[in-house]
Amino acid sequence: MIRELLRVTQQSEVISFAGGLLASDLSPTERVQEACHTVLENSATLALQYGETEGYRPLREMIARHIVRYGIKASAENILITTGSQQALDLIGKLLINPGDRVLVEAPTYLGALQAFSMYAPEFLSVPTDEDGLRINLLEGPLRSGPKFLYVLPNFQNPGGTTLSGYRRRALVQLAERFRVPIVEDDPYGQLRYEGEHLSPLVVLDRVTLPREEDFKLGNVIYLSTFSKTLSPGLRLGWVVAPPDVIAKLAQMKQGADLHTSTFTQMLAYEVAREGFLDEHVKKLRVAYRQRRDVMLDALASEMPPGVTWTRPKGGLFLWVTLPEGMEASELFREALDRKVAFVPGECFFAPDWPGSEAKRHLRLNFSNAKPERIREGVRRLSLAVKAQIRELHPV
Amino acid sequence: MIRELLRVTQQSEVISFAGGLLASDLSPTERVQEACHTVLENSATLALQYGETEGYRPLREMIARHIVRYGIKASAENILITTGSQQALDLIGKLLINPGDRVLVEAPTYLGALQAFSMYAPEFLSVPTDEDGLRINLLEGPLRSGPKFLYVLPNFQNPGGTTLSGYRRRALVQLAERFRVPIVEDDPYGQLRYEGEHLSPLVVLDRVTLPREEDFKLGNVIYLSTFSKTLSPGLRLGWVVAPPDVIAKLAQMKQGADLHTSTFTQMLAYEVAREGFLDEHVKKLRVAYRQRRDVMLDALASEMPPGVTWTRPKGGLFLWVTLPEGMEASELFREALDRKVAFVPGECFFAPDWPGSEAKRHLRLNFSNAKPERIREGVRRLSLAVKAQIRELHPV
Repeated sequence: MIRELLRVTQQSEVISFAGGLLASDLSPTERVQEACHTVLENSATLALQYGETEGYRPLREMIARHIVRYGIKASAENILITTGSQQALDLIGKLLINPGDRVLVEAPTYLGALQAFSMYAPEFLSVPTDEDGLRINLLEGPLRSGPKFLYVLPNFQNPGGTTLSGYRRRALVQLAERFRVPIVEDDPYGQLRYEGEHLSPLVVLDRVTLPREEDFKLGNVIYLSTFSKTLSPGLRLGWVVAPPDVIAKLAQMKQGADLHTSTFTQMLAYEVAREGFLDEHVKKLRVAYRQRRDVMLDALASEMPPGVTWTRPKGGLFLWVTLPEGMEASELFREALDRKVAFVPGECFFAPDWPGSEAKRHLRLNFSNAKPERIREGVRRLSLAVKAQIRELHPV
Repeated sequence: MIRELLRVTQQSEVISFAGGLLASDLSPTERVQEACHTVLENSATLALQYGETEGYRPLREMIARHIVRYGIKASAENILITTGSQQALDLIGKLLINPGDRVLVEAPTYLGALQAFSMYAPEFLSVPTDEDGLRINLLEGPLRSGPKFLYVLPNFQNPGGTTLSGYRRRALVQLAERFRVPIVEDDPYGQLRYEGEHLSPLVVLDRVTLPREEDFKLGNVIYLSTFSKTLSPGLRLGWVVAPPDVIAKLAQMKQGADLHTSTFTQMLAYEVAREGFLDEHVKKLRVAYRQRRDVMLDALASEMPPGVTWTRPKGGLFLWVTLPEGMEASELFREALDRKVAFVPGECFFAPDWPGSEAKRHLRLNFSNAKPERIREGVRRLSLAVKAQIRELHPV
């Protein structure tokens, strides 16, 4: 359905809040061009040849150096390069899920994770969320039920736009440790924070609970991130951080899945990022996306009728709208398309165990792709569609 | 084991016949450099953005145009771009294999296929091969046993170096049709033929058996190929040709696995290949590889002691050596490494059902990577190792 939807929304007269696309006007083209030149001038043979399954070593080492800023003390042995974060989800599913195994997910959660894990036929168990993320006080029962792992997006969640609070992070890590349930922490948007303080990733908090060790050899968290939101999704580059024995097992899965990620794109990313270019680029993205988020929040506040609510994300690419009771996002979608504005109906972000009546009232809006004036116009069109739907439900 | 082996053989004093590496001195660097420039100059936004799961449409259309030369009449709807051929094997495993399903493979067969399929826990059934490929007269029993599919490499097989004869191809297609067993035809080396006539792929012969149809909508064969042997393995680009409903199902699997293959590398391959450059490049590769094959065959003939035999491939990258009875390739491997020459012991190319005693006497030699003088020296070292092993087994 999403693929069909993306096709519709590629028509230029449609204002799309649907995809998770980056601002194409902020693409770092020149730097990538320079990097292509450097890589092919100096190391073409290496770039065009087969490479190691674990990834291009200088890139793994660079990632290890860079993530120290988040408190993650890792070495190359803790890092596996993947063909986008999506591949990491697939490899984790392949490694950990046997048919019928229970997997805990947030409600709502990232659609692509549900798709990746579904291939391995788990039984999903959804845990409710609120503005502070996963509701920890409802987690003990699910953790007791013997799940294989818990999948969570603590920062600016896709689709919810919510952030797991610092208090809940510490509680979550302790609970997971107590019930010996591994955590898969997906953090594609961590660098795109527009306000407030950085919060420690679960992988860092988890290590505080461990016996003192110099190296990163143990741990209860598999951490995922990506170059898709900071450099380019079109290069398909993500990475996993985990204890070396987990990395070794995931590498074995990866070897069967695609041998290794493109050597050339890995070397490009290394060349682009190694002297700090990406840090500067991400600063620009933060300024632009914060502005777009604010424009969307303002437009929603001034255009939407009473009874419609939405989250106020502190970062990332998405916010999450809840419609008044009785309304359905899928019907609104048709009305909205007639008015040339698109979004993703929220239903697809819930695992099958979540009650349908709870899943139908939501929509995900992306605010990073469209320019501010298009965002304003799109929200205006969307609110007209909402008002039309409300009139239909409650005719005067 | 292979990964460890590749690490050892990267030492420059070791002459390696182990990997399936292309000749790095024949890498088309300049053309790739031009293509990078063109793609980023004209279409950077597209190249660095998310793309469609099925692949970059102009590349799919180009592949459809190019494969007509082999008699494959397909359109873009018949083609899925994959992250290397290896990913196609993984997606096919994911789509078709449930735990315990029977899968027919050649003995020996491509190690990477065994790895990819193994993740889905099939029961492998090995069918013997000879110099003309799969032994069709031994196939009826296995086909009757209700397998999910048959996996076969008809051209210059990896590791055997053998080619399925024209007669056997027609017989195979008819048998598979009769028993309604789909064929997965893996053809990474088809363009690298050094002598003899081109033989029709199974996917073409299969279509002759079908009711006349204008479009490629039906069929019993899933055909795989790749840019890894003609352009570069480091870009990780392969493709699948199949009826559109099979492509749609594989695309769904692919979406969960990595969303899509790098847009940038797809556009690069399109730009490099669209005006016929690859055809010219492949002609050069054929000349160089044929010479290297001949050098290896000559060296084997003059250096090896009696009792050692080998295949005489008409194309591809590998030949397959059989040692005298009682010898084991894994023991020879240690002896050979001491003499600074490496190969892949044949055992890993057999599915677990194949009798171990039959699997231990073989080695795979790659002839495309090393330059002729290194090939001669490597075979000399290898034959010394063989002679030393024979003396150990039969002391005078």
